[in-house]
Amino acid sequence: MAAKQIHLNAFEMNCVGHLARGMWRHPADSRYRYTDLDYWNEEARLLEAGCFDALFLADVLGTYETAPGDSAIALREAHQVPVNDPLLLVPALAQVTSQLGFAVTISASYEPPFAHARRMSTVDHLTKGRVGWNVVTSYLDNAARNFGLDGQIAHDERYDRAEEYLHVCYQLWEGSWEDEAVLRDRESGVFTDPRKVHYIDHAGPYFRVAGPHLCEPSPQRTPVIFVATGSPRGKLLAGQHAEAVFLASSSLRNVRADIAEIRHIAVRTGRAPDDVKIFNHLRCIVGRTRSEAERKAEDYAQFRAVQSRFFGFDLSQYDPSTLLQDVELPDNGSGRGPARYIGQFIEQWAGRPTVADLQATIRRHGGLDPFAIVGTPDEIADKIEEFVEVTDLDGFNVHSNVSLESYRDFVELVIPVLADRGLFRSGYDPAQGTLRERLFGSGRTRLPASHPGAACRPSLAHQPAAATG
Amino acid sequence: MAAKQIHLNAFEMNCVGHLARGMWRHPADSRYRYTDLDYWNEEARLLEAGCFDALFLADVLGTYETAPGDSAIALREAHQVPVNDPLLLVPALAQVTSQLGFAVTISASYEPPFAHARRMSTVDHLTKGRVGWNVVTSYLDNAARNFGLDGQIAHDERYDRAEEYLHVCYQLWEGSWEDEAVLRDRESGVFTDPRKVHYIDHAGPYFRVAGPHLCEPSPQRTPVIFVATGSPRGKLLAGQHAEAVFLASSSLRNVRADIAEIRHIAVRTGRAPDDVKIFNHLRCIVGRTRSEAERKAEDYAQFRAVQSRFFGFDLSQYDPSTLLQDVELPDNGSGRGPARYIGQFIEQWAGRPTVADLQATIRRHGGLDPFAIVGTPDEIADKIEEFVEVTDLDGFNVHSNVSLESYRDFVELVIPVLADRGLFRSGYDPAQGTLRERLFGSGRTRLPASHPGAACRPSLAHQPAAATG
Repeated sequence: MAAKQIHLNAFEMNCVGHLARGMWRHPADSRYRYTDLDYWNEEARLLEAGCFDALFLADVLGTYETAPGDSAIALREAHQVPVNDPLLLVPALAQVTSQLGFAVTISASYEPPFAHARRMSTVDHLTKGRVGWNVVTSYLDNAARNFGLDGQIAHDERYDRAEEYLHVCYQLWEGSWEDEAVLRDRESGVFTDPRKVHYIDHAGPYFRVAGPHLCEPSPQRTPVIFVATGSPRGKLLAGQHAEAVFLASSSLRNVRADIAEIRHIAVRTGRAPDDVKIFNHLRCIVGRTRSEAERKAEDYAQFRAVQSRFFGFDLSQYDPSTLLQDVELPDNGSGRGPARYIGQFIEQWAGRPTVADLQATIRRHGGLDPFAIVGTPDEIADKIEEFVEVTDLDGFNVHSNVSLESYRDFVELVIPVLADRGLFRSGYDPAQGTLRERLFGSGRTRLPASHPGAACRPSLAHQPAAATG
Repeated sequence: MAAKQIHLNAFEMNCVGHLARGMWRHPADSRYRYTDLDYWNEEARLLEAGCFDALFLADVLGTYETAPGDSAIALREAHQVPVNDPLLLVPALAQVTSQLGFAVTISASYEPPFAHARRMSTVDHLTKGRVGWNVVTSYLDNAARNFGLDGQIAHDERYDRAEEYLHVCYQLWEGSWEDEAVLRDRESGVFTDPRKVHYIDHAGPYFRVAGPHLCEPSPQRTPVIFVATGSPRGKLLAGQHAEAVFLASSSLRNVRADIAEIRHIAVRTGRAPDDVKIFNHLRCIVGRTRSEAERKAEDYAQFRAVQSRFFGFDLSQYDPSTLLQDVELPDNGSGRGPARYIGQFIEQWAGRPTVADLQATIRRHGGLDPFAIVGTPDEIADKIEEFVEVTDLDGFNVHSNVSLESYRDFVELVIPVLADRGLFRSGYDPAQGTLRERLFGSGRTRLPASHPGAACRPSLAHQPAAATG
């Protein structure tokens, strides 16, 4: 069967060091220029030249601490700190692009929904409908302490709050202003027909918001809803609300299972299975030849910061020849600790791996990641085809190792091969002007009727903004 | 004595109708394009061609209601609704300008200070130090209901909160990262020296924020602090914290008194009198000749929405020949109601004005405003000189009647006359790259030592981000 066309986002963050730890030390890396618009202009133009779907911007609202009050390692290694606000890049980059989308990570846990909804509408206006919102609930204790709490809200309650947060936003985006509300009638002097603008008068367990929304309808109204998650509660939210899901699974088998589960939840709530586009990350080191790719991987490995400490324990305490199966692996209780990752590594290894094998793999790829590839453009395209076939993935969030070299390599070397194989667009479709259309086809600028946000569209039940028209 | 050089901001808002009510109906007005970056690009380039200090962006977080739940008049007339987020314009406009500053109104009443501080640092980075923050506490009941409250926090308590909010921000901007914290040392692998980054561990009556700040120091660190106020508690805040104050006083005498009071408070807290630049608004209708200006004023008056209802009562209930002194004026208790405004109007009128006189003045100028001028460039320059001499003002926030015609008139006709008279710069000083330098002279990129924010700079009392360096 012919492979489906995939979607590609650049997996970015408004900081020096996102996931390619230590790579800022590479002589070719210019990541320290993240505070400068020229850096981002160059990257955005490059991605648009490669016909990427979107620039996906991750975010955190605190530092990675090794203990409360100790951010020393993260600071020293520039591991996601310093980190600037991601959304503020978007209006600037809308000036230098016309097709590229922007998917921005914003936590639903700490900021009031009313102001957030206005910011998203504003950016959807300024980009002419090219924006997505990656809904997260935040996972750093330090973030909670930056927003007046002693510690994090419990995981599943964060998702309950997020669900109400989404519902508030949908009411503002979909329900508050009818399509025909803005008349702009110079003759009669009526700019907006007040009978077609509605207070939302939301009063829920977590939020109370009167409305009306302050913004007239933007091209997409609701930005494309991304959800980045892996937890059971997160997958439930994703199946119900996400138009795009970003997984960061540690094995192809898990990705396949997560995708099946999310599509199943979507169908159960009345949505179509392909109403949810599912992405996983992808780490590539590409060379024109196999040996060029290998050399590049070895070059990068010299700079990569390998923090086995971040697995919760230090591998260097073991003799390198120790068989991994003999290492007692701590389980940090989250189900995402070393026991799980290293267990999967042992399972996928041909033979019995040692501590040295594990260290070499981490050194090479920066992690134990089945979605990390070193190879020629054709080898990378082969792998991408395999990933899609095995897992049912719709696309990838592409990592960068060295900025801007990595995306330049990907755009110049890999994209043409993917396009030749029919795996990826060979140019933007001008009939797909908005991010939602880019993902779902032309004409689908707004949420489909099956999406829960659509249920917030105006009905007679809503109170108009004026008792007397 | 030679008049001092003034500062000029454009007084703007990210909406259709800011203060020139009804002017969106004028055939030449293109204000409805406020959702389009091209509109703002054109305006920002025009202001930069005129060597304006800054684009000053007002904001509200709710609608003007005539009663709770009734926003009909504001919606119909596009009176500050729809209104998009102001800050998101700035990164975009930083792309098309290199000198123009941006002073953005953001309320200290409803959003968490930690995220706000990061947004401002981000914009200060992206603009290379061209941003100011106009601190307000919001005054609309609807805004309070959009942020989970039943009604507004009491006026003076809003200012107490704002003061703590500022203190939290100063700690993040000035105290959290030392100047030498970012080493960016590729050899040793130390990006940031954790010993030079500090948690703030703020715990006050209104806010609890751990820190550290997520952003490395931006050019100005603290954005230029504007305060827009007129109330006694507001003036106290302004005298202590403001580097620029925006007054909207109704008489020259009041402006003069407000300025003297604010400078007095500044001096009492150890600041210099000219550490605070004070602006009032300015409304101009300019023509090359007196008759052209008059024709333009008459043309505009046809479109101006005159809402005497917004004074709290309806003038049309009176016979136009009624003497104003015989009209019983309601006092809405705020000291800013019709009794005050109309009282001042009667006082300044030569003779005994009627209801018709009042209506004609409002029709012509859109309000009872001594800072509204109709005239030639020379007449306007004369008035500006007079305002400065009488009041001790440092500058003006210039209104627009018709977009972009009004700013084009001002830049093409008035600015050259002001520059010829030595009242305004004739070109940007390239040694003043940041907004703070533009206002206070080259070299003053950061807060002066006498400003309360400077007291938050690191000392040994702060806890470093790591117990072990």
